[in-house]
Amino acid sequence: MKDLATTTPDDQDAWYHDPLGRWVEQTEQALLLDVLALREGQAVVDINAGTGRLARTLAASTGANLIAVEPCRSVRDIGEARTRGLPVRWLSGGPESLPLDDATADVVLLITVLEFVPDRYRVFEEARRVLRPGGKLVIGALNVLSPWAALYHHLGQQGIGPWASAHLWTPDQLAQLLGVSDAEVRGCVYLAPAAQPPFRGADAAGMRAGNRPAFLVASCTK
Amino acid sequence: MKDLATTTPDDQDAWYHDPLGRWVEQTEQALLLDVLALREGQAVVDINAGTGRLARTLAASTGANLIAVEPCRSVRDIGEARTRGLPVRWLSGGPESLPLDDATADVVLLITVLEFVPDRYRVFEEARRVLRPGGKLVIGALNVLSPWAALYHHLGQQGIGPWASAHLWTPDQLAQLLGVSDAEVRGCVYLAPAAQPPFRGADAAGMRAGNRPAFLVASCTK
Repeated sequence: MKDLATTTPDDQDAWYHDPLGRWVEQTEQALLLDVLALREGQAVVDINAGTGRLARTLAASTGANLIAVEPCRSVRDIGEARTRGLPVRWLSGGPESLPLDDATADVVLLITVLEFVPDRYRVFEEARRVLRPGGKLVIGALNVLSPWAALYHHLGQQGIGPWASAHLWTPDQLAQLLGVSDAEVRGCVYLAPAAQPPFRGADAAGMRAGNRPAFLVASCTK
Repeated sequence: MKDLATTTPDDQDAWYHDPLGRWVEQTEQALLLDVLALREGQAVVDINAGTGRLARTLAASTGANLIAVEPCRSVRDIGEARTRGLPVRWLSGGPESLPLDDATADVVLLITVLEFVPDRYRVFEEARRVLRPGGKLVIGALNVLSPWAALYHHLGQQGIGPWASAHLWTPDQLAQLLGVSDAEVRGCVYLAPAAQPPFRGADAAGMRAGNRPAFLVASCTK
């Protein structure tokens, strides 16, 4: 969840000033770091990198070389400022047409991107295009069956933020897209949008309550 | 939740043979009994009474006189069989046009009805019409913000059951319809559709996780 019912760069970051937003971000990034298992010097493309919050974490904690692609100038400016001094190169470009050569990336990330693009299969194919053979494509996606999806759908019905046209995912849809088994789709964030701190306890409670995880991560090798 | 993604009478009842369905029904009926506080001999109209599961509970445990109105013949037949020997009178009729005189009922129930009718305000006014001055109108409604709403929306997108056109409610929308304060809207069922037994523990966990209750109950006096 990069943003919650928001459209402007300032708003996108506002969510992370909220204690719950911060906890969710840390939890999602921890899962991504685990799935990615990045090695020093790997070329990692982050598509629709936004204000660079994930790129900063990955660059700072792994030594990988990030290529952050973001179409919106004002958003990219924030990202560049945030990742200054880190091995992150920013490029202007939309997810349907990346400014990158074929088969050049070791890892390509589509994190909460496929929910919000008009043609998700084209974006998926474009991500695969820039990946080298043997490289890893990682998708992070919002789960249509989590308690958060109820909120997103309700916001969408009111025309708030990007939710009206968002396409959320089931774990098996994600597995099918990537050509992996359901068991390879991992998830985190079992608490609900109205959770109160301490969030670790709320998250364990969400799992016990039968909540589906809000954030799904799956990967495949090209 | 009278039924889960179902349309036929048999299917409507199948949900209650599931241990979770039974627990949900008991929990919802307990809340309704508490809100209703029925007295012996009161005339209670149950609109779209379905297969009579709620009418049976209310008639058997309170001594009220139930008038169960249900438009579908095959569903009504099941309800009549289920409530035989109890003070339940079955009538054929749709929620937009009840076969009852003005101002004759002490209590009128609209339990998971307003989600599924084309004109919910007309149905609401029709329910009020048959209520006597000083009588009580009770609405039970599915909460658009609960984890169950995510499942219902997902089923609706696949065209399953009545969910594609269902209108779920927020607590404040329900309060506004009835002209009461938000605080007067009560709720139950905090666990999620994938909850495992024991359900009482899963329900407490759902509350701790910040889940919104799946079933809302509110009432007003005419």
